[in-house]
Amino acid sequence: MDLLNQINSREDLCALDAQQLQQLCEELRQFLVQNVAKTGGHLAANLGLVELTVAIERVFDTSKDRLLFDVGHQSYVHKILTGRRDEFCSLRTLGGIAGFPKPDESPCDAFVAGHASSSVSTALGMARARTLQKQDYHVIALMGDGAMTGGLAYEGLNDAGESNEPLIVILNDNGMSITPNVGGISKHLSVIRTRPGYFRLKKGYRSVTNAIPGGKAIYRFSHRMKERWKRMLLGSTFFDEMGFEYYGPVDGHNLKRLEYMLNLAKNCRKPVLLHVLTKKGKGYAPAEENPDVFHGIGSFDPATGKPCACAEKPTFSDTFGKTICALARENEKVCAITAAMIGGTGLKEFSAEFPERCFDVGIAEGHAVAMAGGLAKQGMIPVVAIYSTFLQRAFDMLLQDVAMQKLHVVFAVDRAGLVGEDGETHQGIFDINYLRAVPNMQVLCPANQAELETMLREAVLSMDGPVAVRYPRGGDGELTAQAQSPLLRQGTDITLVGYGKLINEIMGAADLLQADKISAEVVKLPSVKPIDMAAIAQSVRKTRHLLVAEEAVCIGCAGKEIAATLRMQGIVVPTALVNIGDRFVPHGTVAALYQLLGLDAESIAKKAREVLHEA
Amino acid sequence: MDLLNQINSREDLCALDAQQLQQLCEELRQFLVQNVAKTGGHLAANLGLVELTVAIERVFDTSKDRLLFDVGHQSYVHKILTGRRDEFCSLRTLGGIAGFPKPDESPCDAFVAGHASSSVSTALGMARARTLQKQDYHVIALMGDGAMTGGLAYEGLNDAGESNEPLIVILNDNGMSITPNVGGISKHLSVIRTRPGYFRLKKGYRSVTNAIPGGKAIYRFSHRMKERWKRMLLGSTFFDEMGFEYYGPVDGHNLKRLEYMLNLAKNCRKPVLLHVLTKKGKGYAPAEENPDVFHGIGSFDPATGKPCACAEKPTFSDTFGKTICALARENEKVCAITAAMIGGTGLKEFSAEFPERCFDVGIAEGHAVAMAGGLAKQGMIPVVAIYSTFLQRAFDMLLQDVAMQKLHVVFAVDRAGLVGEDGETHQGIFDINYLRAVPNMQVLCPANQAELETMLREAVLSMDGPVAVRYPRGGDGELTAQAQSPLLRQGTDITLVGYGKLINEIMGAADLLQADKISAEVVKLPSVKPIDMAAIAQSVRKTRHLLVAEEAVCIGCAGKEIAATLRMQGIVVPTALVNIGDRFVPHGTVAALYQLLGLDAESIAKKAREVLHEA
Repeated sequence: MDLLNQINSREDLCALDAQQLQQLCEELRQFLVQNVAKTGGHLAANLGLVELTVAIERVFDTSKDRLLFDVGHQSYVHKILTGRRDEFCSLRTLGGIAGFPKPDESPCDAFVAGHASSSVSTALGMARARTLQKQDYHVIALMGDGAMTGGLAYEGLNDAGESNEPLIVILNDNGMSITPNVGGISKHLSVIRTRPGYFRLKKGYRSVTNAIPGGKAIYRFSHRMKERWKRMLLGSTFFDEMGFEYYGPVDGHNLKRLEYMLNLAKNCRKPVLLHVLTKKGKGYAPAEENPDVFHGIGSFDPATGKPCACAEKPTFSDTFGKTICALARENEKVCAITAAMIGGTGLKEFSAEFPERCFDVGIAEGHAVAMAGGLAKQGMIPVVAIYSTFLQRAFDMLLQDVAMQKLHVVFAVDRAGLVGEDGETHQGIFDINYLRAVPNMQVLCPANQAELETMLREAVLSMDGPVAVRYPRGGDGELTAQAQSPLLRQGTDITLVGYGKLINEIMGAADLLQADKISAEVVKLPSVKPIDMAAIAQSVRKTRHLLVAEEAVCIGCAGKEIAATLRMQGIVVPTALVNIGDRFVPHGTVAALYQLLGLDAESIAKKAREVLHEA
Repeated sequence: MDLLNQINSREDLCALDAQQLQQLCEELRQFLVQNVAKTGGHLAANLGLVELTVAIERVFDTSKDRLLFDVGHQSYVHKILTGRRDEFCSLRTLGGIAGFPKPDESPCDAFVAGHASSSVSTALGMARARTLQKQDYHVIALMGDGAMTGGLAYEGLNDAGESNEPLIVILNDNGMSITPNVGGISKHLSVIRTRPGYFRLKKGYRSVTNAIPGGKAIYRFSHRMKERWKRMLLGSTFFDEMGFEYYGPVDGHNLKRLEYMLNLAKNCRKPVLLHVLTKKGKGYAPAEENPDVFHGIGSFDPATGKPCACAEKPTFSDTFGKTICALARENEKVCAITAAMIGGTGLKEFSAEFPERCFDVGIAEGHAVAMAGGLAKQGMIPVVAIYSTFLQRAFDMLLQDVAMQKLHVVFAVDRAGLVGEDGETHQGIFDINYLRAVPNMQVLCPANQAELETMLREAVLSMDGPVAVRYPRGGDGELTAQAQSPLLRQGTDITLVGYGKLINEIMGAADLLQADKISAEVVKLPSVKPIDMAAIAQSVRKTRHLLVAEEAVCIGCAGKEIAATLRMQGIVVPTALVNIGDRFVPHGTVAALYQLLGLDAESIAKKAREVLHEA
């Protein structure tokens, strides 16, 4: 890292010659691999963006010009080059460097960005603020071709083109096959069109996806959709008509050409779209061969690319995938919808076995939910597999297009609760509120994977109206006891109530209290809407003390409803509500976050002792 | 209405000859004008759709084929022709015919539709359900050119084109000027291109908008944006590339041509986009001249088109508009954002006086909020003027793009609480929940227009971080007393707590209780986040009884937080929470809905008596 270690400012970076820059890019790749091998993180996308980021940092001053990532997990090289090289080993740990842009970390991080397709909107707001205040800086949105398929991106592009505000949108087109209508593009820049490297990229992608199990079906689908999308972009006057100057495509690993094009864009006093072709995983063979695996990854051996942990336990997502396949075999009305998350949500097997019943709609959560409404209204049983944090994008559709007509749509809400290292933008801490707020919605909370299977089966085959089944990220959710009754543990001094995976911490708290000769009764809720108030009331009448613990923000949480309902039933006892409060939650391991938030067994036990002393 | 009164089935409609059909269309227009003159409602759009709806009902069997309106207020003719002619006089009244499609009313209403841009998503879901179940019916989405600008429409079109499912999207292009690139269109159907009537439409629109006060600026903006959008649609291979067959444009008032084109579309086994040109207000001179005024209107004199009510009181929206202008004069950082609602939100004057600081982004609520984040981050003070029900579309952006960075964006949340006649899809009853759930958000609740002015001023000039100011539809919000202190009325027996316009009903309840010799103390909250717990606690310590009344669903309502907080402070008293509960609310006057929901003065007083007896 001879050169990288000498880069302490933009001036240092600008002073390098062509050969040094090439060496720097190599060192950056080594640095990325070495670090992410230890911390885990988003590797493949960042490897693909090394030259582009170096070029941007040289052409623009990101402490003043505003660089907007979309989504933010491709910001690693930017972070390393803007003063965070030495802390980079703390990536994604509590108090360490975030895996996404964070203005609190550095003035070079222009904006928080975790969800897709928002960068053009942000960029346009900034560009307008600049013009209105007669200031002088550049605004650059860097977005992937996936993010470009979201409706929000389209809304932003539409308004940005119309505005005529100078701003630059860089379309990072990573490794997908494209067939540009050269006629349309050559109008702009025939110099750099159709290059040999371009066709290599295309072939490479095909061979890679064919090698992944189930990859062929995924390839076919995502390929067709993206192909069409890109033909539309490139082969037509799409961007022209929107009011953009279109520049490209340019080889995203050719530093000299990138800088040339960025300078052109910088000097254009109109909205510019710069189309850059990059290769995901570029320069690290294991990631080039398996970009999907290296998209987001845990720690691994940098020499081989093999994950450190031995055979991982099956995750909740795996169990969801297995169960939905079984249900689809039993009932031909069952179908699945995902917003560009076939892999993440566990639908790979389903998409291979039931391709005609599996709908990957792109990064389009609103459409996913609205379309589910149409399917359900006409007699199918759609299961929308989606992360808690992304379902926020479809709050209105939950209300208008599903719940208002009591349609039987099942929401498999993955990554509910704390997700850990992805941090602030990805924590699933709002769904308890926004799902419960939807009239007619039922909300089930499996605490382990066996329960997920049972509850999903019930939600799909036996229940009616909208049902959400929410479950956490990862695989660690095994409950010591597998409950038939809500009463997990009998006791006489205090009632501890909880649901989902957190019930394990609550059971731990009961153990700790036991050591103090405090007898805690544990009531586990299978559902937070409706809530089994009879079981809670029965227990509280006996123990006369109550604690409700949950991994959710405090507004609209289950604890408040329980306390209010008991109050209406005339049961007034010392009560503690343990939850996340009214706040966002940073990145860190889930265990570290439990401690930070007072949701670990010890903190819960401590709170229980306070309730008992209060009496 | 000789002919219309004889139409009792689709067979009757299909039996008519060309001359009879022309008479029917005339009668339908008379019927619409006569009825809406009494009930109020959406007139101009429905007048423009007479021939198109008649053609659709003849070519398709809407009891079996699925016709999806986007948005649903253009469904009047459909309702009249599908068995609801005789009840049509009950339009928009409690228990009467809804102003939007409602499957509960008739099997011919395929789906609830109130918010824009969702029809293609719904249609695609239905088409997929049909194909998977090997059924045989047609699916038709009928959407206006405005709805087509929303990101959700784009997501739906993208997926629908890709799916290759047979379905028909009708683009109802009403009265806006367009300049189709004939080359692009003529590929499909040169027969019907560029017609004389088409240019008349264009000229008509210009003269109309020039006649509206402030219309010129609006025309310039919306004109440019739509012009560009349409050039993109028509002059390019946009729909082709998306996988659609493009048919049109066709004169939307020529029944014969419409039926011919609809039959073509019906027989195409692919996704079809049929482009229809209509004139808003067609056939009723006052509405043709002022389509904006007759978009949504109260009762009026059908002979003259003049509204029945004499000079209306200024609305909350008017006061918002006046205040934002004053603030913008004082502070040049103040700017305004609206999602295609310049008129509705009261921004007409602002847009004329500060065109460079007024951003109408189209029907794109997510983009509006995300862009506001960018503006605020770079030092402007954006005010997003938006209806409560539409802000649901931007819930995720409130969290990710504004609150997470504590950005100072002000949300002027209009139509908060019950909106009355527009009904179910438009009631602003969820914002208390979803705004309060956003960390760092403050939520102010003016109870009258003087308070709106004061609070908006404070929110914009003195506060920091995200602030929502929520206020109701219409003008009836005057409070008897204008409070400096939260204590509106002193009493000794029970504390009544409320906020916003509902405080008038609460004061009314206090009067009723007084007649019964019950002394009620009334605490008015200026804010529901944070809540002035000190004022409430002080009062409740004295009265030992509490009632909290609010126009909001029960999950995450202020009452639950008040009850829970008092409980933690050791103040346990008989308590009633009066709210909307966990439900959607149908259409009717606000007064009728208050009674239905137990939010009128009498119901509140009754509930207060129950609390006192409980003790």
